Amino acid sequence: MTTLSVIGLGPMGQALSGALLDAHLPLSVWNRTESKAAGLLTRGARWAPSPAEAISASDLTMINVVDHAALDAIVDSAGQAVAGRTIVGLSSDAPECARRTAALVEKLGGRYLDGAVMTPTVTIGTPDASILFAGPRDLYDVHQATFTTLATPTWVGDEVGRAAGFDMALLDLFWTSVGGFMHALKVAGSNGIGPAELLPHAHGIVGILPPILDEIAERVGTDRHGDSDASVSSLASSLRHLIDASRDAGADTAALEALRRSADAAVAAGQGDDEVSRVTSYL
Amino acid sequence: MTTLSVIGLGPMGQALSGALLDAHLPLSVWNRTESKAAGLLTRGARWAPSPAEAISASDLTMINVVDHAALDAIVDSAGQAVAGRTIVGLSSDAPECARRTAALVEKLGGRYLDGAVMTPTVTIGTPDASILFAGPRDLYDVHQATFTTLATPTWVGDEVGRAAGFDMALLDLFWTSVGGFMHALKVAGSNGIGPAELLPHAHGIVGILPPILDEIAERVGTDRHGDSDASVSSLASSLRHLIDASRDAGADTAALEALRRSADAAVAAGQGDDEVSRVTSYL
Ligand SMILES: NC(=O)c1ccc[n+]([C@@H]2O[C@H](COP(=O)([O-])OP(=O)(O)OC[C@H]3O[C@@H](n4cnc5c(N)ncnc54)[C@H](OP(=O)(O)O)[C@@H]3O)[C@@H](O)[C@H]2O)c1
Ligand SMILES: NC(=O)c1ccc[n+]([C@@H]2O[C@H](COP(=O)([O-])OP(=O)(O)OC[C@H]3O[C@@H](n4cnc5c(N)ncnc54)[C@H](OP(=O)(O)O)[C@@H]3O)[C@@H](O)[C@H]2O)c1
Repeated sequence: MTTLSVIGLGPMGQALSGALLDAHLPLSVWNRTESKAAGLLTRGARWAPSPAEAISASDLTMINVVDHAALDAIVDSAGQAVAGRTIVGLSSDAPECARRTAALVEKLGGRYLDGAVMTPTVTIGTPDASILFAGPRDLYDVHQATFTTLATPTWVGDEVGRAAGFDMALLDLFWTSVGGFMHALKVAGSNGIGPAELLPHAHGIVGILPPILDEIAERVGTDRHGDSDASVSSLASSLRHLIDASRDAGADTAALEALRRSADAAVAAGQGDDEVSRVTSYL
Repeated sequence: MTTLSVIGLGPMGQALSGALLDAHLPLSVWNRTESKAAGLLTRGARWAPSPAEAISASDLTMINVVDHAALDAIVDSAGQAVAGRTIVGLSSDAPECARRTAALVEKLGGRYLDGAVMTPTVTIGTPDASILFAGPRDLYDVHQATFTTLATPTWVGDEVGRAAGFDMALLDLFWTSVGGFMHALKVAGSNGIGPAELLPHAHGIVGILPPILDEIAERVGTDRHGDSDASVSSLASSLRHLIDASRDAGADTAALEALRRSADAAVAAGQGDDEVSRVTSYL
């Protein structure tokens, strides 16, 4: 049986560790702040006194700290303990950081897979969770069963920066949308519309997104922006009103203004009658 | 039987007119650019030579031009023809514009309802379409059956600016999300990930939004941001990497930077360990 370690016990590391314990897998844990391990230790996890000991204790160590700078410092501190071990980095960061971590682990004689967790903590341990992996396919295959106890795993390629490439694009969509909702709550509030009143209609907006994303992906993929149902010039006009409404609400307008600048640039280039997908290249 | 007019035959006005013709309702239309009416006339619509004649011809006239400045100019030009008629404005704009249009219509002796179309053209004529209305409840009730041939109508209150209040908040969410997806396509592309490859994972992100919106609405509604599963400081760190990745992709970073400034302000106020919902008041 594979022995496992988890390093990093923030909300996500706790969720991953909990799912491994639920599956009765032998688990060692380490976290910079030891007290965060308490709950997991009562559930059967073993405390590793250092990252080196966590990595030595196990065939496979998953590291899930805030980012790759913290991850690399931990790997570095483990030094020789890394030789012959497999490390999976699950911290969210840019593709070149994943490549740097892979080089560091390999220099120390270990093997490396990079991962990106695409769903919130509550999903972990269920098939609704999604984790993307990049790196050597054989290494992914060896550990796929373990990953499946955590999430629906997807291998996206052997170039180790690829999971992070997906991660950056998908987090961009995620945080922009979540930030847009929080901004919308503020705009609604200034118009006497409370969160509970706005919420069902916000669900309606989320509900119309899937076919719109399909159409935009198709149009951008084929660089075809004619026959518009929602034109760049109509978007530019809407954004002006949205910016006014945000200003009236005392909300920051910079995000909407960035989109407006891109729409205006497309209009200035004579593309006002094209579909909004046209704006992509100006973003 | 109610006679109907539609003024404004952009993509949305075409969709609304088409749905009314499909329902065999008697329809007059006017558009600044007459040629856009051609298809509707062959399907049985009647051409009104001016906005005044469109409004005179019908009990109910729906106006769906680009915004309320254009809408008010049309109502103004119709002058006395408005007396005794009902106008429904469906152009997207700020709440005070809806109030201004209502005052103008009432001054001319007409009655006014304001509407906001919350779904794309393809939904019009099906229950998947959503149109919000604000204004006198009795007037809404008289025309509800007509509105139901177009969409699922929802009356949001007699204060005539309320539909636009919802509209501004919901379009904020909508365009920010759609803009975020287009931006994500650009970031993905720079990492060798094409639209078709990103799309299924983007659907995954949209799929996780509903419970996250529920939680944020609940937390903002009750001003409770403790017990975090996704902290402000983790968000602030992620945004730094996203901004770097955007810059590497040659994409504009202003929208992500706006969100980062708000997250940083919350961290600076000692709220880094709180849930991301905390950022709302800084946006
Ligand atoms: N939470 C989510 O919903 C979610 C979803 C998808 C992906 N992710 C990603 O998963 C990763 C972890 O996220 P998280 O939510 O668990 O919390 P987080 O706040 O991003 O990270 C907290 C963890 O990082 C550790 N850490 C921070 N700086 C460190 C350093 N210099 N040296 C050693 N350890 C350090 C913390 O240790 P201490 O306890 O000692 O502070 C803690 O274990 C992040 O990259 C995040 O983007 C999170
Ligand atoms: N399309 C969608 O998916 C959608 C969804 C929800 C809400 N909406 C809202 O619905 C409204 C109409 O949208 P749309 O997509 O049909 O197209 P649009 O590009 O926003 O508006 C085009 C219409 O406005 C008319 N117009 C523009 N300026 C005018 C002026 N100064 N005087 C008279 N008419 C003028 C145009 O006439 P000409 O033909 O002569 O140019 C055309 O009839 C907008 O407020 C939009 O935000 C649209």
